[in-house]
Amino acid sequence: MIQAAIISTGDELTTGRTTDTNAGFIADRLLGLGIDVVAVLTVGDRPERLRWAWSEALRLAEVVIATGGLGPTADDLTTETVAALLGRPLVHDAAVAERIRELFRLFNRPMPENNLKQAAFPEGAVIVPNPLGTAPGYRMEVGSAEDRRHLVVLPGVPREMKPMLTETVLPWLAELAGAARVGHRTFQTFGISESGLDEVIAGIPGEGRWSFRANFPEVSVRVVVRGDDVERRLEAFGREVYARLGQYIYGEGDTSMERVVGALLAARGVTVAFAESCTGGLVSHRLTNVPGSSAYYRGGVNAYANAVKEALLGVPSALLEAEGAVSEAVAGAMAEGARRALGSDLAVGVTGIAGPDGGTAEKPVGTVCFGLAAADRPTVTRRYQLWGNREWVKLLASQIALDWVRRHLLALPLLEIGPRGAGPAEAKRESVAPS
Amino acid sequence: MIQAAIISTGDELTTGRTTDTNAGFIADRLLGLGIDVVAVLTVGDRPERLRWAWSEALRLAEVVIATGGLGPTADDLTTETVAALLGRPLVHDAAVAERIRELFRLFNRPMPENNLKQAAFPEGAVIVPNPLGTAPGYRMEVGSAEDRRHLVVLPGVPREMKPMLTETVLPWLAELAGAARVGHRTFQTFGISESGLDEVIAGIPGEGRWSFRANFPEVSVRVVVRGDDVERRLEAFGREVYARLGQYIYGEGDTSMERVVGALLAARGVTVAFAESCTGGLVSHRLTNVPGSSAYYRGGVNAYANAVKEALLGVPSALLEAEGAVSEAVAGAMAEGARRALGSDLAVGVTGIAGPDGGTAEKPVGTVCFGLAAADRPTVTRRYQLWGNREWVKLLASQIALDWVRRHLLALPLLEIGPRGAGPAEAKRESVAPS
Repeated sequence: MIQAAIISTGDELTTGRTTDTNAGFIADRLLGLGIDVVAVLTVGDRPERLRWAWSEALRLAEVVIATGGLGPTADDLTTETVAALLGRPLVHDAAVAERIRELFRLFNRPMPENNLKQAAFPEGAVIVPNPLGTAPGYRMEVGSAEDRRHLVVLPGVPREMKPMLTETVLPWLAELAGAARVGHRTFQTFGISESGLDEVIAGIPGEGRWSFRANFPEVSVRVVVRGDDVERRLEAFGREVYARLGQYIYGEGDTSMERVVGALLAARGVTVAFAESCTGGLVSHRLTNVPGSSAYYRGGVNAYANAVKEALLGVPSALLEAEGAVSEAVAGAMAEGARRALGSDLAVGVTGIAGPDGGTAEKPVGTVCFGLAAADRPTVTRRYQLWGNREWVKLLASQIALDWVRRHLLALPLLEIGPRGAGPAEAKRESVAPS
Repeated sequence: MIQAAIISTGDELTTGRTTDTNAGFIADRLLGLGIDVVAVLTVGDRPERLRWAWSEALRLAEVVIATGGLGPTADDLTTETVAALLGRPLVHDAAVAERIRELFRLFNRPMPENNLKQAAFPEGAVIVPNPLGTAPGYRMEVGSAEDRRHLVVLPGVPREMKPMLTETVLPWLAELAGAARVGHRTFQTFGISESGLDEVIAGIPGEGRWSFRANFPEVSVRVVVRGDDVERRLEAFGREVYARLGQYIYGEGDTSMERVVGALLAARGVTVAFAESCTGGLVSHRLTNVPGSSAYYRGGVNAYANAVKEALLGVPSALLEAEGAVSEAVAGAMAEGARRALGSDLAVGVTGIAGPDGGTAEKPVGTVCFGLAAADRPTVTRRYQLWGNREWVKLLASQIALDWVRRHLLALPLLEIGPRGAGPAEAKRESVAPS
């Protein structure tokens, strides 16, 4: 198995101004090729620290991928450091220099002379094009055939780095790693805990490397397969996973609950509206993050005050008084009111206690009620006991609201949520999908 | 200046399942004490990799702070590795063991024997209590007086690690760093770019280390002061900063625009409502993230479809037709409609084109109009040209809506936004506050 080291460079990382998301992104993609990351080395913009990081990385691993330090200013030292460490001269690349000049012309700005620094590369470097910025990256091979090292240098800005990695670096690494014989699939789940998934997956026969990634309130499951017959084996794993976990898998690969729900609504020509109390607009916000959502999202009423529930959603004040604002009956009435007032095919109502205050013995913090109203069937309601702080309760409730739409459109059973089921022994992971 | 190295441990980090937010959090807090982070070393749960990380960290820096690898399972190797590296035996701590047993009783779960592993520490370790989990941390001093090393080991779960760092470790480090002579202030700004801030700050006399942190759509400015008279000098810097940047500073320290706006609304007894089109509920979502927001947030209407703008907000269809849904007139009518329908003192309307589709030559993607309606003055409206992808336009627009409320309550001038003003030369940073 090929081993890699990642170097993240920049004072903004070692001073905590910026969270390094590059290393994780790269590590995730390398894992997909069956490449193992032995270490991430993060250093600020100082020559001696960069030298330390590069010497150690080259000592530890066959592949080194570095981000940052390619800018035009004096504190951008990556290329100089690498060239010095490898004992290679810097070579000026005329084509890259011309592209930089052109970009400045395009932006109608004078080009500072030091920007041409970005057109100098260690001898032997192969350019990795940067479609979105002035600094291209590069890759190099060094060392003898028995002791080969592969270096990749990319800019630190994530939106420039990511396409460069995906479009140019990964295909090249895939070849290096013999990726014709490596493949993977990632299943996105909601409504089952990491340990619950672990148990189910453990029973699946066949050789694959399974891993879980909890990203509250979801858990994704990935299987990496190496060796012969990769495609066929991935297909067989997929069949098993769907047979055992079907209703919990909302999508595969790089997707999200809101995108899946949006695509389902669009495909079926169904419009939706939301009546939100405790989620305060989060359900609507998430669905409207999906480009093109105006095709199926009519709108929503965020009804915090009871008077708003009455005036805009027509929830009877007698019902609010008798059942309380956090009740299945009110959630149902909110859904029906939203469907009526906003003229949608489908509507979901959410009302609950996000905390930290407002809980009672009967309705503790985390109590959230849902209602779904549709033309073709009676309104469905349900009360769940959720957990976590205010933001988690909101997030989990918004996820349930979206999952209800998904399950309704796919005629799946209503989501079941048991107790959290994670004691202190499991506190190591921040995982918290409902079990 | 004291130098520190940070170690982040866990396979979840080197496989990209989890983004490491611990290292940045720690680095930020250390900077506040004037302690410089020379490197972050991230490794998976393998003995040889942990050994590498610890030996290098102890070689590089006087203070080493590590997170992760303190769990009860076989792949939690930090304590064993540290003890072996330092040549110290493991010592069982009876009080810690009892606390672990008690936690399991509390959760009503059987305790696996291997959890007692968390009660063993290298000889000489001083316990750092963990109020929120089973694994305490510890700190140690090693080496001779001339070559002293300070080690801190904390669990990897952020919500456990953070209070342990803040409550126990930082006060101890402050003493070590002579923090009586170090102090800092952090100003949160919105509406001015990082380079704009940089220019203004550069003119401020006095000795302090200034740094900027762009967290779209905001930029925070921090000044660290060392030496004599720390308090007085911080106060003087504060006076200068407010004199030059007053209206752009919405708060200081660990706060957010929504919390500041919420506190202002609560203090003045003013209620608010929102009518959101392109932000799709995000403004309401953000304000309802603030605990206690039900005291001043009445609710909101997310009016995506024009029919919803008409039916729930009373926007005249003739106006929609004449001016278009994205217009100052409609934004104003939305704000007035929300104020009327939701019965609030104050209301803000937002309508725009978040993209990627829907733009025209006259109203390109990023065109967003705002309106603010209040009892005591005529409705104010304004059109801005925003930038970025769909999520950025939404986020920036939601920030402007909240800032409008803040500026209204503080009788500040209307927010001015110029062109983005960042060409390729500045693309290195993801910074993007409006200039």
